[in-house]
Amino acid sequence: MATKSEMKRYASLKDRKARAESDLFIAEGRKIVTEGLRSGCPCENVFVRKGYLGGDEEMNRLLSGREMEVLDEQEFRKLSDTRNPQGILGIFDYRNLLVKDLAEDTIIALFDVADPRNMGTIIRSADWFGIREIVIGETCVDLFNDKVVRSTMGSIFHNRFHLASDLSSTLSALKPEYRIVTADIGGADYRKRRIGGKRVFVFSNEARGPSRDILEISDEIVTITGKGRAESLNVSCAAAIIMADIE
Amino acid sequence: MATKSEMKRYASLKDRKARAESDLFIAEGRKIVTEGLRSGCPCENVFVRKGYLGGDEEMNRLLSGREMEVLDEQEFRKLSDTRNPQGILGIFDYRNLLVKDLAEDTIIALFDVADPRNMGTIIRSADWFGIREIVIGETCVDLFNDKVVRSTMGSIFHNRFHLASDLSSTLSALKPEYRIVTADIGGADYRKRRIGGKRVFVFSNEARGPSRDILEISDEIVTITGKGRAESLNVSCAAAIIMADIE
Repeated sequence: MATKSEMKRYASLKDRKARAESDLFIAEGRKIVTEGLRSGCPCENVFVRKGYLGGDEEMNRLLSGREMEVLDEQEFRKLSDTRNPQGILGIFDYRNLLVKDLAEDTIIALFDVADPRNMGTIIRSADWFGIREIVIGETCVDLFNDKVVRSTMGSIFHNRFHLASDLSSTLSALKPEYRIVTADIGGADYRKRRIGGKRVFVFSNEARGPSRDILEISDEIVTITGKGRAESLNVSCAAAIIMADIE
Repeated sequence: MATKSEMKRYASLKDRKARAESDLFIAEGRKIVTEGLRSGCPCENVFVRKGYLGGDEEMNRLLSGREMEVLDEQEFRKLSDTRNPQGILGIFDYRNLLVKDLAEDTIIALFDVADPRNMGTIIRSADWFGIREIVIGETCVDLFNDKVVRSTMGSIFHNRFHLASDLSSTLSALKPEYRIVTADIGGADYRKRRIGGKRVFVFSNEARGPSRDILEISDEIVTITGKGRAESLNVSCAAAIIMADIE
């Protein structure tokens, strides 16, 4: 049984600062908790709402031997952040989702992505296309924000993240080995970019675009040309289009 | 000045049934109201919150000659559906955004898309790629839902929509002239589909996929092959990838 003070500590995890202090985050929903347990990410606790009807066989297998605490509606709401909760959430330790050193041939970097759903959706797409390492710039929304976590549909447990304290420096440090390919308006057609080699693809806030620093570091600026009247593409759509094109 | 009963009627437009009865919808935010006015879509009223700092030059030009009503915070909230409203919204007549007959070479059709942000984002991407006609299946979220409208970023005013009362019948009726290309798992690589001719691209609810009826009507099933561990792509990302590939 979680003590009263533990419950208070868990409820505080809705707040970014409390997450950073404890290295814990809340993952909510059946699919996401399943992916978390399946991935072997350390899980401190699983809570279900009274009346929760259990998961499928796999969930039961993953949970076997693990204590699962039942909370009443009111207590569950203190941890949950959805209007209509599915009734299950887990408290996970995020430290083994983080990496200091980047090593994959293809890396995604996010600059100033403020919308949690966009960030989560990009992580999900990266996972779909087998891109495993993602750099999160310092002005982005927090990676462990509940809306980010939910939008990844569990992919947050499949990828590895580097939390940059200064994205430009991180990119500069990678530059000897990697080509920096930045999506922005006014660049070259993304389908005509240089093929092969190690690359970092940089996606930015859709309203403000990449910073001057990042543009200067970039080896290539790529663009998805439009034909209609929309002013821009949603950043998670733009990222998906470019990731789908990576050979 | 809008009368008390008009204000009540406008507030009721948050509800799908009231929208269907009056042919009106609420478009909220500076960018979206600008696009609405610029498009020439009939606008019954523009409301701003007390203290709203005005738009840019174009907005002022578009509004010139039009009465703009100032509401206090509480009254504005009755019409607004955002937590942090920008302070401007318009009441638009949606009838000239609808079409009975479809005529373009490339059409998008949505089946059972329940998430408003996904629908809005698909409309925005379609606009980006110059795809103008969109069929909305009967089990989709309502096109004029405020979250759909906001996610289009104004593209709702650029496209034309056919509201299907039975999507399978609509597709069947189009079939003599159009190829029906449906996105689903287990189909052929989307990059290898038949080129040219008139096509309807069908995108479906990402959890449930297309219905059996729709699969039977389809001339081609196309898939975006993944390499990672994600179970699926977000439907607005999948749609964007396929639209980007349309010649």
